[in-house]
Amino acid sequence: MSRPSILVLHGPNLNLLGQREPGIYGSVTLEKINQQLLSLAESLKCNIEFYQSNHEGNLVDSIQEALGCHNGILINAAAYTHTSVAIRDALAAVAIPAVEVHLSNIYRREDFRHHSFIAPIVIGQISGFGAQSYSLGLQALIHHLQTQT
Amino acid sequence: MSRPSILVLHGPNLNLLGQREPGIYGSVTLEKINQQLLSLAESLKCNIEFYQSNHEGNLVDSIQEALGCHNGILINAAAYTHTSVAIRDALAAVAIPAVEVHLSNIYRREDFRHHSFIAPIVIGQISGFGAQSYSLGLQALIHHLQTQT
Amino acid sequence: MSRPSILVLHGPNLNLLGQREPGIYGSVTLEKINQQLLSLAESLKCNIEFYQSNHEGNLVDSIQEALGCHNGILINAAAYTHTSVAIRDALAAVAIPAVEVHLSNIYRREDFRHHSFIAPIVIGQISGFGAQSYSLGLQALIHHLQTQT
Amino acid sequence: MSRPSILVLHGPNLNLLGQREPGIYGSVTLEKINQQLLSLAESLKCNIEFYQSNHEGNLVDSIQEALGCHNGILINAAAYTHTSVAIRDALAAVAIPAVEVHLSNIYRREDFRHHSFIAPIVIGQISGFGAQSYSLGLQALIHHLQTQT
Amino acid sequence: MSRPSILVLHGPNLNLLGQREPGIYGSVTLEKINQQLLSLAESLKCNIEFYQSNHEGNLVDSIQEALGCHNGILINAAAYTHTSVAIRDALAAVAIPAVEVHLSNIYRREDFRHHSFIAPIVIGQISGFGAQSYSLGLQALIHHLQTQT
Amino acid sequence: MSRPSILVLHGPNLNLLGQREPGIYGSVTLEKINQQLLSLAESLKCNIEFYQSNHEGNLVDSIQEALGCHNGILINAAAYTHTSVAIRDALAAVAIPAVEVHLSNIYRREDFRHHSFIAPIVIGQISGFGAQSYSLGLQALIHHLQTQT
Amino acid sequence: MSRPSILVLHGPNLNLLGQREPGIYGSVTLEKINQQLLSLAESLKCNIEFYQSNHEGNLVDSIQEALGCHNGILINAAAYTHTSVAIRDALAAVAIPAVEVHLSNIYRREDFRHHSFIAPIVIGQISGFGAQSYSLGLQALIHHLQTQT
Amino acid sequence: MSRPSILVLHGPNLNLLGQREPGIYGSVTLEKINQQLLSLAESLKCNIEFYQSNHEGNLVDSIQEALGCHNGILINAAAYTHTSVAIRDALAAVAIPAVEVHLSNIYRREDFRHHSFIAPIVIGQISGFGAQSYSLGLQALIHHLQTQT
Amino acid sequence: MSRPSILVLHGPNLNLLGQREPGIYGSVTLEKINQQLLSLAESLKCNIEFYQSNHEGNLVDSIQEALGCHNGILINAAAYTHTSVAIRDALAAVAIPAVEVHLSNIYRREDFRHHSFIAPIVIGQISGFGAQSYSLGLQALIHHLQTQT
Amino acid sequence: MSRPSILVLHGPNLNLLGQREPGIYGSVTLEKINQQLLSLAESLKCNIEFYQSNHEGNLVDSIQEALGCHNGILINAAAYTHTSVAIRDALAAVAIPAVEVHLSNIYRREDFRHHSFIAPIVIGQISGFGAQSYSLGLQALIHHLQTQT
Amino acid sequence: MSRPSILVLHGPNLNLLGQREPGIYGSVTLEKINQQLLSLAESLKCNIEFYQSNHEGNLVDSIQEALGCHNGILINAAAYTHTSVAIRDALAAVAIPAVEVHLSNIYRREDFRHHSFIAPIVIGQISGFGAQSYSLGLQALIHHLQTQT
Amino acid sequence: MSRPSILVLHGPNLNLLGQREPGIYGSVTLEKINQQLLSLAESLKCNIEFYQSNHEGNLVDSIQEALGCHNGILINAAAYTHTSVAIRDALAAVAIPAVEVHLSNIYRREDFRHHSFIAPIVIGQISGFGAQSYSLGLQALIHHLQTQT
Repeated sequence: MSRPSILVLHGPNLNLLGQREPGIYGSVTLEKINQQLLSLAESLKCNIEFYQSNHEGNLVDSIQEALGCHNGILINAAAYTHTSVAIRDALAAVAIPAVEVHLSNIYRREDFRHHSFIAPIVIGQISGFGAQSYSLGLQALIHHLQTQT
Repeated sequence: MSRPSILVLHGPNLNLLGQREPGIYGSVTLEKINQQLLSLAESLKCNIEFYQSNHEGNLVDSIQEALGCHNGILINAAAYTHTSVAIRDALAAVAIPAVEVHLSNIYRREDFRHHSFIAPIVIGQISGFGAQSYSLGLQALIHHLQTQT
Repeated sequence: MSRPSILVLHGPNLNLLGQREPGIYGSVTLEKINQQLLSLAESLKCNIEFYQSNHEGNLVDSIQEALGCHNGILINAAAYTHTSVAIRDALAAVAIPAVEVHLSNIYRREDFRHHSFIAPIVIGQISGFGAQSYSLGLQALIHHLQTQT
Repeated sequence: MSRPSILVLHGPNLNLLGQREPGIYGSVTLEKINQQLLSLAESLKCNIEFYQSNHEGNLVDSIQEALGCHNGILINAAAYTHTSVAIRDALAAVAIPAVEVHLSNIYRREDFRHHSFIAPIVIGQISGFGAQSYSLGLQALIHHLQTQT
Repeated sequence: MSRPSILVLHGPNLNLLGQREPGIYGSVTLEKINQQLLSLAESLKCNIEFYQSNHEGNLVDSIQEALGCHNGILINAAAYTHTSVAIRDALAAVAIPAVEVHLSNIYRREDFRHHSFIAPIVIGQISGFGAQSYSLGLQALIHHLQTQT
Repeated sequence: MSRPSILVLHGPNLNLLGQREPGIYGSVTLEKINQQLLSLAESLKCNIEFYQSNHEGNLVDSIQEALGCHNGILINAAAYTHTSVAIRDALAAVAIPAVEVHLSNIYRREDFRHHSFIAPIVIGQISGFGAQSYSLGLQALIHHLQTQT
Repeated sequence: MSRPSILVLHGPNLNLLGQREPGIYGSVTLEKINQQLLSLAESLKCNIEFYQSNHEGNLVDSIQEALGCHNGILINAAAYTHTSVAIRDALAAVAIPAVEVHLSNIYRREDFRHHSFIAPIVIGQISGFGAQSYSLGLQALIHHLQTQT
Repeated sequence: MSRPSILVLHGPNLNLLGQREPGIYGSVTLEKINQQLLSLAESLKCNIEFYQSNHEGNLVDSIQEALGCHNGILINAAAYTHTSVAIRDALAAVAIPAVEVHLSNIYRREDFRHHSFIAPIVIGQISGFGAQSYSLGLQALIHHLQTQT
Repeated sequence: MSRPSILVLHGPNLNLLGQREPGIYGSVTLEKINQQLLSLAESLKCNIEFYQSNHEGNLVDSIQEALGCHNGILINAAAYTHTSVAIRDALAAVAIPAVEVHLSNIYRREDFRHHSFIAPIVIGQISGFGAQSYSLGLQALIHHLQTQT
Repeated sequence: MSRPSILVLHGPNLNLLGQREPGIYGSVTLEKINQQLLSLAESLKCNIEFYQSNHEGNLVDSIQEALGCHNGILINAAAYTHTSVAIRDALAAVAIPAVEVHLSNIYRREDFRHHSFIAPIVIGQISGFGAQSYSLGLQALIHHLQTQT
Repeated sequence: MSRPSILVLHGPNLNLLGQREPGIYGSVTLEKINQQLLSLAESLKCNIEFYQSNHEGNLVDSIQEALGCHNGILINAAAYTHTSVAIRDALAAVAIPAVEVHLSNIYRREDFRHHSFIAPIVIGQISGFGAQSYSLGLQALIHHLQTQT
Repeated sequence: MSRPSILVLHGPNLNLLGQREPGIYGSVTLEKINQQLLSLAESLKCNIEFYQSNHEGNLVDSIQEALGCHNGILINAAAYTHTSVAIRDALAAVAIPAVEVHLSNIYRREDFRHHSFIAPIVIGQISGFGAQSYSLGLQALIHHLQTQT
C-alpha cells in the first residue's frame, strides 16, 4: 500500500487550545498537536493534512473533498460531535475509514457530551488522553488501513 | 397567477447523491433529480431554481433571499431536518409556502431521523420515494399555490 | 406489466369527510377523493378499488384479501395509523407495496399523531396536502410498481 | 328545545357488569344501569337510547349515526378510553356534546388507565361513582344542552 | 342516618371566580356556587359548610378539623390538586369520604393539570362541568354516604 | 374433573401463517397448528375449540362467550397483545384460566412488542417456540386446571 | 460545648399520629414521640424544642428563627419532603446541621415519596423505624455536633 | 398615565439575603434591594410597595389584593417559582402585567430550578444579575406599562 | 476602567426583524434595536459593535475574535440558543463576560425553546421584553463589568 | 442425533425454593424440580445436568464450560435475568441453544422484573407456570434440537 | 427473648475504609466500625457476627446461611445496593428482619446511588452518618426485634 | 521513575475470545492480546500482569490488590462495564490511574452498552479497535504515568 494519506479534522474552538480552559483541555496548542502528529505520521510512513474550522458546513465540505484524496480521517468534531447529523452523514457518505478522538474525557463532563452522533459510524472512539488522543487515533487509523488492505 | 417561481433547496451531502450509500439513497444523482424537476416545472408552467449547500447558514440565507423572488420552497434539508431550528425559523419568518421532501423513508431509519423541526411549519411532508419525492413535492407545492390564489 | 390493480383503503371517520372539522380536513368529501383517484387511475392505466371502514378488523381483512388481487395498497389508516399494530402486521404479512397518506399534516397536530406504526413498513409517507395526498400517493405507488418490474 | 335525545354508549365488557370483578365494578348489571338512566331520562324529559359493543368499529359507527339523531352522547368507552384514537376522532367529527363516565375510579387503578384519549374533546369526565357516574353524567349532559340553547 | 354534614373546600384563587379567566372558569362566582349547593343540600337533607383558602396549610387544617364534624368532604383543591401531597395525606388521614371536583375540564389544559395527587384516594373525580361539577359532586357524596350506611 | 374444554384464540393475521414472513413465523400454517393441538388435546383428554379473528371485538366476544363453556383459554392475541386493553379486561372479567403464547420470540423484535397488556392477568406466557408454543401452552393450561381442582 | 439546643420539626398531618392510618404510621401519638425525645434529650444533655405545623410557610419561618437559637434541626417534613423547595432552601440558608427522619419506610410507598428535596442538603436520612426514627435522628444529630466541635 | 403602582413580591427565604449562601446570592440584603428599587422607582416616577413572605398562601393573597391597587407586579417567587401552580394561577387570574426575576442564574443550579411555573404567564424573565435583576425587572415592567397605554 | 467595549451578537433570522412574525417578535427592526443600543451605550460610556449572522460558524468566529477586543458580549443566539454547543463552548473558551437575551418570552413558546445551551455559562438571561431585552442586557453587562473591576 | 445433553442452570436463591415466599414461588423444592426434569429427560431420551449458584460469575463459568459438553441450556437466571449482561454475553458467546424459564409470572411483579437481558438471545421464554415452566422449557429445547438437526 | 444474634454484612470495597476517599467515607476503618458495633452489641445484649465481601454471590450465600442462625441482618451493601436484585431477593427469601445503612449520604451523590433495590424490603434505611449509621442501624434492629416478640 | 507496573484486567467472557462472535470481537485470542501487550510492555519498559475473570467480585478483589503493587490499571470490564458500580467504586477507592478499553465499538451495539459506569472515573476510554484497543490503552497509561511524575 503506497503512503496512506490522512485528513485530520479539528472542530470548533480547538483553534483556541492552549488559551482555553486549561483545566479541561490542558495547555497544549493545536499547533503543538499538529506537530506531534506530523512527526508520528513520518514514523508511520503516512501523509497528513490538517484542517480546523468553527463551521459545521466547512467540516462537511472537507470530509467530502477527502474523497479520492485521503485514505483515512482522524476527527475531533468537538462541540459538533454532539449536535451534527450532517458531519455523521458526510462520514457515512464518503465511507472513508475514520477515527473519533477527544482531548477531554467526555464522560466526565455534562450529560449532553456523553452522546456522539459520530461514534456509531466510525471505527472507534478515543477520549480523555489530551493531545495523545490524536496520536493514539492516528496509530489506530493506520493500523486499520494496513490490516484492511 | 403568472408563472410561479419555486426555490428547490438541497441540504448537506445531497451533492454526493449517486456516490452515497445507494442502499439508502438509490443511485440517482442530484443533477438527475434537478433535470427531472426542470422538465416537470416546464409542464407545471413554473420557474425553478436549485441550490444545494452543506452549510446551515447558507440555507438560512437562501430561504431569506427567496423573499420577493420565489412563491414556493421545496426543501430536502437532509441532516439539518433533525437538528436545525434556524432553518425552521427562516421558513416561518419568510412565510413562503414550503414542502418538505426526503429521498429515503426516514421512519425506517435511526430514531433521531423520525423527528423533523421543519414538518410542523410547512404544508406537508413527502418521504421515501427516492427522486420521485421531489417531483411529488413540486406538484403538491404548485397545486397548493394554485388553490390558494 | 398488465394494468396494475390498486386497493385504496380509507380508515375510520374518513366517511365523514366534508362534514368533519373542515379546518383540519378541508371540505372535500371521500366520494370526491375517490372520483379524483378514479380519473387519475385512468391516466395511470391502473385499476383501482376503494374500501372505507371504521373497523380495524375490516381493514386487516381487506389487506389480506388484496393478496393475489391487488399489486399495490394506498392507505390512509387515519386514527388507526397511531394505534394499530394489526394493520401494520397485515401490510407486512401480505408484502404488497404500500404507500401511507394523510390529508392533514400530522406533525402539526397532537403529539400522539406524530408516531405511525405503518410508516416503517411501507414505501413512504405523504402527509398534509389534503385530497392531493391521495393522488400523489397513487402516482408514487404506480411509479414504484413500474420501476420494480 | 324539544325533548333532547341522548345516546348512551357502553364500551367493551360492560355487558358483563354484575358478573365481572365486583371488587372494582360493583354488583350492578348494565341492565340495571340502563333502567336507572331510563327513569332519570323521564324526569329530565329527554329521550335515551343505549348501545353496548365490544367492537371499537361499532362504537365509531354508532357515534357517526348519532349525527342528526341525538343531541348528546354519554360514553363509557371502558378499555377503549385508553387506546382508541378512532372513537376520539368520531366524537370530534360529529361534534355532538359528549360526557365521559367511568364506574371505577380510573386513577386508583393501573397507570395506563390514567390517560384518556377522549377526555380532552368532551365536556367533562366523571369517574369513580359506580352506576351513579352514569346518572351524574346524564344530568351534566342535559344541563349543558339546556344552558347551550 | 341523621342529616349528614358536608364540608365544601375551595382551593386557591377560586375566590376570584367570576372575575377570573371567564373563558376557562365561566362567569359564575363562588358565592353563586355556594348558594346553589346550599339549596341542593336542602333537597338532599344534608348540612353544608363552605371554606375557601389560598393557603395549603389552611386547607390541611380544615380537613383535619372535619374529623368528628363532617361526614363527607367535597373538594376543589384547584392548583393544589397538582402539587399538594399534604392535602392528599390529610384526606387519607381523616378517612372521611371525599369527592374531587373541577370547574374546568383539566384534561383540556396544560399537561401538569392532568395529574391529581388527590384522585387516587377519594371516591371519584368530576371535572369540566363548571359550577355543576360541585352539584354533581355533592349528589355523588350523599349517594355514597347513604349506600355506605 | 370431566374433560376440560379449552378455547384456542388466534389473533389478527395468524390466518396467513405459512404465507407470512417465514423468517419470523416459520412455514407452519394455522391449520397445521390446530391439527397438532387437536391430537395433543386427545392425549390430554380435553376438548378444544379454535377461533381466529382479525377483529379485536370478535376476540372480546369469544372470550365472553367462553363463560360457562370453556375451562381454559389459550390465546395468541398477536398484534392485539400490545395494544388491546379490551382483550385484557375480557380475560379478567370472565376469570377463566388463560395462557398467553407467541410463535416468535417477541423480545427479539421491535420494542413495542416487548410489552403485553395480557401477560399480567394470565397464568403465564410462552414466547418464541413457533408452533410448539401452542402445544406447550395447552399442556401448561391443562396442568394448571388439574392442579387447581 | 454548652448544652446544644435542638429544634424538632414535625410536618403536616403528624399531629394526627395515633389516629392516622396505623398500618403505615403505627399507633404512637406525636405527644408520645415528643416525650420519648424529651427523655432522650436529657440523657444526651441537650435542650429540645418541638414545633408541628401543617403550613409550609410556618415550617420555613421556624427554620429561619432557629438561627442563633438552635444548634441542630431534626425534621420530619412528611408530605412537604417531596414537594417543598422552600423548606430545602431554608435549611440551606440557615446552614444549621439537620437530620431528616420518617416514621414509615418511604421506599415501600408510592413512587413520588421516593424523592426528597431535603435529603441532599442534610447530614443524613433515617426512614422506616416508626417513632424510633426520631430517637435515632436525635442521637445522630448530637453525635454530629459533638464530633464537629 | 398617572404614576403606576408596582407591587414587588419577594418569595421564601429572601428575607435572609445577606446572611444566606453569599456564593449564590451575593451579600446584598433584601432591605438594600428594596432601597435601590425605591430610588429607581422615583426616577421612573412610579409608586412601589414591597412584600416578602415565606408562605405560598400569603403571596397568592397579596397578588389577589393587587387587583385595583397595582398596575404591575415584580415577582421573585424564589423556591415557589418551581413548585407553585397557585401563584401562577393567581397571576393569571388578576391579569396584572408581571415580570419574573431571580438573583442567581437559575440555569446554573440544580435541574429542578430550570423549570418555572410562572415564566409562561408573565411578560418575561430576568435571571442571574443579583440585586440588579430587580432593577432591570422594574424598568422592563414600567416600559411595558408605558408602551401598553 | 477605560470605556469598555461590548460586542452585540444577533443570531439567525434576526436580520428579518420587523418583517418576521410580528405577533412574536414585534415590529421593531434590527437596525432600530442597534440604534437604541448605540444611544444607550453612549449614556453608559461604552463602545459597542454589532454583528448578525445566520451562520453558527460565523458567530463562533466572532466570539473568538472578541478576545482582546471586547470586554463583554451581549448575545441573542436566537435558534442556535437551543441547538449550538459550539457557541456555548466559544463563550466558555474566551471567558468574556456575556449576557443572553431574547426578544420573545421563550418559555411561552415550543418546548424545545425552553432549553438554552448558553444560559448555564453566561452571567444571566433576559427573555420576553422585545427590543428592551437588549437594553436591559447591556445595562446588566456594564453593571457587571463595573462591579467586577 | 445421539442423546442430547442439557445443562439446567438455576440462578440465585432458587436453592431456597420450598422455604421461600410460597405465595410467589409455590411450595416445590429445587430438588423436586430437578427430579421431575430427570424423569422427563428420560422420556425425552436426553441427558441432563443441574447446577445452581448464587454467583453470577459461577453461572458464566458454567455456561462457558458447557461448550463441547452440552447441546442445550435451560436457564432460570432468577434475579440475574434482570441485571446480568455477563450471563447474556456468555450465552451469546457459546452459541448453545438456550431456553429461559421462570417459575413466577415476572409480568405480574415489580416493573424491573419485566425486562430480561437474556430473552433477546435465547430461543424463547416461558414464565409463570411454577415448576412446570422447567418441564415445558426442556420439551421446547429438545424439540428445537431435534428440528434443527 | 434469648440474646438475639445479628449478622452485619459489609458490601464491596468497605474493606478499604480508612484508605478510601476520606472526603466521602471519612477516615474510620471497617475494623473500627466492627469494634464499635461489638461494644454496642454488648450493651444491647445481642450477639453479632461480621462478614465483608466484594462478591455479590458471597453476600447472597451469607444471607441464606443466616436462616436459623441470626435474628436480624444489618446490611451496607455499598455498590450492590444499586445493582443487585439477587441480594434483595435473598433478604426477601429468608424473611429475616433487616436494616439498610450507608456511611455516606447517598442522596448527595450520583443519581444512580439514589435508588436502592433493598430499601423497599427492609425495615428501614439509615444513610449519611458515617460509622454511626451502623450503630443507629443496630439499635433500630434490636428495638424492632424486641417490639416484635 | 522505576519500571511502572501495569495490571491488565479482562472482564467476563473475554477468555472465549477467538471462539466468540468473530463478527463482533474478531478472531484474536486473549492469549494473543496478552502476548502483544507483553512485547509492547517491553518496549515501553514497564512490567505487566494479566488477570481475567468472569466474576465481578474477583475483579474488585484484584483492583484492591493492585494497591501498592501496580502503578496503572488497563481494564476491559466487558459486560460489567455497563452494570457494575462495585468495579467503579474499587477503581475510585484505590485511585490508581486506569484506562478503559473495548475491542468492539460499543456505540455501534445495543443501547445498554452505550453507558459505562467506569468511564467517568478513569483517565479515558478507547473503544472499537479490536486487540489494538489494548495496545493503545497501554501506551496512553504509560504516557500518563510518565507525564504525571
